[in-house]
Amino acid sequence: MLILALDTATEKGSLALMAGDRLLAESFFDTPGAYLTRLLPGIAGLLADAGRDLRALGGIAVSVGPGNFTGLRIGLATAKTLAWSLGCPLAAVPTMEALAANFPFHPHPIGVIVDAKRQEVFWGLYQCDCPWPAPLMAPRRLPAADLTGLLTPPLLLTGPGLKAHEEMLQSFAPPGVSWAPPEMRHPRAASVARLGRRLIEEGRAASPADLTPTYLRPAL
Amino acid sequence: MLILALDTATEKGSLALMAGDRLLAESFFDTPGAYLTRLLPGIAGLLADAGRDLRALGGIAVSVGPGNFTGLRIGLATAKTLAWSLGCPLAAVPTMEALAANFPFHPHPIGVIVDAKRQEVFWGLYQCDCPWPAPLMAPRRLPAADLTGLLTPPLLLTGPGLKAHEEMLQSFAPPGVSWAPPEMRHPRAASVARLGRRLIEEGRAASPADLTPTYLRPAL
Repeated sequence: MLILALDTATEKGSLALMAGDRLLAESFFDTPGAYLTRLLPGIAGLLADAGRDLRALGGIAVSVGPGNFTGLRIGLATAKTLAWSLGCPLAAVPTMEALAANFPFHPHPIGVIVDAKRQEVFWGLYQCDCPWPAPLMAPRRLPAADLTGLLTPPLLLTGPGLKAHEEMLQSFAPPGVSWAPPEMRHPRAASVARLGRRLIEEGRAASPADLTPTYLRPAL
Repeated sequence: MLILALDTATEKGSLALMAGDRLLAESFFDTPGAYLTRLLPGIAGLLADAGRDLRALGGIAVSVGPGNFTGLRIGLATAKTLAWSLGCPLAAVPTMEALAANFPFHPHPIGVIVDAKRQEVFWGLYQCDCPWPAPLMAPRRLPAADLTGLLTPPLLLTGPGLKAHEEMLQSFAPPGVSWAPPEMRHPRAASVARLGRRLIEEGRAASPADLTPTYLRPAL
């Protein structure tokens, strides 16, 4: 199955094209605010690079948040419309699971931090001791200052929200807490494709008409 | 420091542009045999996407093998020429270290397998319990069948050479041996950039005139 995966949940976007478990092409761009103009040319370029036609797509996987309001809306609108117009299944991949999936077979808990604005963060805790991350608790929104009470080692911290609080957290972190390298703290569309393919194969595709982003807080 | 990183050591190539530890753009393409025509347009596209000029580059990082003869030669010729013509430092990143660096802070040994043709493989064993992989032994070339004697758990297997021997290895592997997801078994140029930046910062840049690929076997 040829799967196109999109992630626009953070300021760094990512696109991937996978045929089964073979990654055909992936791109990653750091262009805040430009998703509306960059996404379709990016998808077209990816398909052209891989020599594949849009109509050959067998599934669409999309990162559904939590994350940036506008990015998520554009990403979801694009993914839903593609799935609907091509008549292929749509997989809704939680962004925090995609972030944990950057560390497969990691035997320790993975703490994922995504910025929620106003000194708040989204916090999720995952076990990824197989290829698939499993949530150890439901992701939740909390004041960034509360993170200091959650640093129970062994723990690997990751996520695009880590940087803003890194200094504060480092001063509280006990030994055994480690920090993902910065370039691995953003979702990879290849991971979104991997998780999305599993959802489709297990019959857990989403409905293009009904899918909405996971904000974990009401939009203003 | 703005770093351009290239990996052409396997059939899947990758390019990345990083400003310090910020990943500006990354692309990944699966176009065997097309490096000579794809590499320069790929670099130009990456710079254009990030709104940066070639002359702003402060360093070049290149994956030096072992791997595909022709891919390595084209990648190294390109990286060496860029570093020489722009007058910026060149970092030579061992491909097997870049492969292990896809699993930072993984507390178990990481076994890296790269195809060496004629039923042989390159085998390297790394500890990556910090952001930087450390070799547990010098990488070496051996008959693929000898891998079965090296599967000491706990162990995470990765590398582009894993797929061809996966079935055979799975029948021998004891519990505690795990298999990297297929899309993470190829070098990521972002990891090459991370390792290359460290080499440059530590004053261990390579000489553009002298650098040659690491083949671990004589070229024919």
